[in-house]
Amino acid sequence: MSQATELTRSGVEAAYETIKSLVHRTPAIASSSLSASLPGQNTLYFKAENLQKGGAFKFRGASHSLERLTQDQLQRGVCTHSSGNHAGALALAAKERGAACYVVMPSNSSQPKIAAVRAYGAAITFCEPTAAARAATLAAVQARTGATFVPPYDAVDTILGQGTALLELLEQVPEPLAAVVVPVGGGGLLAGTALAADGTGVRVFGAEPAGAADCAQGLRQGARVEDVQADTICDGLRTPVGALNFPVIRQRVEDVIVVSDEEVVEAMRLMWERLKLVVEPSSATAFAAVRSSAFQALNIKGPVGIIISGGNVDLSKPLPWMDK
Amino acid sequence: MSQATELTRSGVEAAYETIKSLVHRTPAIASSSLSASLPGQNTLYFKAENLQKGGAFKFRGASHSLERLTQDQLQRGVCTHSSGNHAGALALAAKERGAACYVVMPSNSSQPKIAAVRAYGAAITFCEPTAAARAATLAAVQARTGATFVPPYDAVDTILGQGTALLELLEQVPEPLAAVVVPVGGGGLLAGTALAADGTGVRVFGAEPAGAADCAQGLRQGARVEDVQADTICDGLRTPVGALNFPVIRQRVEDVIVVSDEEVVEAMRLMWERLKLVVEPSSATAFAAVRSSAFQALNIKGPVGIIISGGNVDLSKPLPWMDK
Repeated sequence: MSQATELTRSGVEAAYETIKSLVHRTPAIASSSLSASLPGQNTLYFKAENLQKGGAFKFRGASHSLERLTQDQLQRGVCTHSSGNHAGALALAAKERGAACYVVMPSNSSQPKIAAVRAYGAAITFCEPTAAARAATLAAVQARTGATFVPPYDAVDTILGQGTALLELLEQVPEPLAAVVVPVGGGGLLAGTALAADGTGVRVFGAEPAGAADCAQGLRQGARVEDVQADTICDGLRTPVGALNFPVIRQRVEDVIVVSDEEVVEAMRLMWERLKLVVEPSSATAFAAVRSSAFQALNIKGPVGIIISGGNVDLSKPLPWMDK
Repeated sequence: MSQATELTRSGVEAAYETIKSLVHRTPAIASSSLSASLPGQNTLYFKAENLQKGGAFKFRGASHSLERLTQDQLQRGVCTHSSGNHAGALALAAKERGAACYVVMPSNSSQPKIAAVRAYGAAITFCEPTAAARAATLAAVQARTGATFVPPYDAVDTILGQGTALLELLEQVPEPLAAVVVPVGGGGLLAGTALAADGTGVRVFGAEPAGAADCAQGLRQGARVEDVQADTICDGLRTPVGALNFPVIRQRVEDVIVVSDEEVVEAMRLMWERLKLVVEPSSATAFAAVRSSAFQALNIKGPVGIIISGGNVDLSKPLPWMDK
């Protein structure tokens, strides 16, 4: 077990020491054509966490959480609820660690995400797609198995693990970043990134789809929005920001930029075409935010980091821009 | 100008010194799930040249060819014929070098490839999609401009440039490769790879679609097939193997494995889903070959390198597996 228990930059550094040998060091990809396409002409560095194990940054928080368990806890296994990337990440991390994994998934989860969780050997229990059904089903699974709950975002070890993506990006870029932009759903990546940026001078921004903009709204009204009626293509960002995550974000994040689904799809298509990367809609919010007039109006000088959160897309269906 | 003029491993090394600062050092991506999916259980390292400048390995040969020109030649510019990645690569390399670029493209070239060449500032002349029309149009362009012809594959400097991808991959992998597999169209990448592998013990294989298997046929009959009636989804591999390329391949390549378009599409889909990379059909031939029973029957022990040749796909159209 590592000593990382606090929501601080050194907590993220300790988490990185703990998981460094377990995670992929994903590439930081510069694109001169995308950089030149924007008024600010900032050099853009895309941290390709879609190339992370399990296809998303979530593997960082999941493996950090696992490493922090006792031997006894590991023997009883881990459990979680998630419709997507966290479930796959935890299942894979548990498989690599030889621990059992139990996942509660809403019955309307996408087929590829269900298939991934299954392929990583986790036991799936389906539930109705409501918060109440999810909590009750998870409680039953825990009572039956004694497994430890590893939350998808609202937990210290998860947040610290997610923050390691920025630490790695800062090591990889040839020049100091002026800013970094990441998607916000539950806020694990954004809170972790903000902690990792502490004292570095890197300005931190979140990106949120208009159809699930609870974090931006919470920052405006000065209190966390605890419920969200999500209506967005960004399936990874439909959850409200977490209770632990919100105060970190409120204290350390400069702004959360809200983008429309149309802007997300446009950014996503550009990323597929120019970066040659399969990225999911949630991931494209960050680049969409950088392309927005709100961000460009800040007139930031210097390179901008963009964390690509994941690449788990149902490729059997037409891509979103093909529908039109 | 570098001193690389011979079709030898040291020629490839000299080419690499020349272009090292001009090309992207593309990532070498390991996939435990794809590696574990095959009987041989070889660790697979994918060299992601789809993330190269211009979206394909072709930038290596194009920039090497440009570096080998005299100042006087550069001032008059370069020209080529190509329906695809070589045109984009040469246009981009010329743009970065400040040289004019003239491209002859068949009138049925794909829209994204035309758009890319145009975006890189090259002047396009369209011609009928026949070899005769192409040659006549190119001759007219050369007569008018005095530009130097940079061939897509059948030239020493091109071959040496393409070989640098394997040199880089060998630097990147943590253990010696047992084999490397690359797609064959004109044979620039395969001949260059074979030269780069010389003396390293790495076994070299080509991968060719059944609908344009002139190289495999030429090896069987002991003489180059000079004409090919291509019928394959692999738009980058429809050309016959080059006159300079064939003898290098014949002497140094262990085998060229032929795969069906169905196998290509299956491999391509797996690469999109698991590697999260946008790869074009031509690129998927190499992984399709590694998945084939012909390759698996060789019972090769040790890691296998696969060079992903490019990622230029028309994303406005349904993906090939969506048609079904």
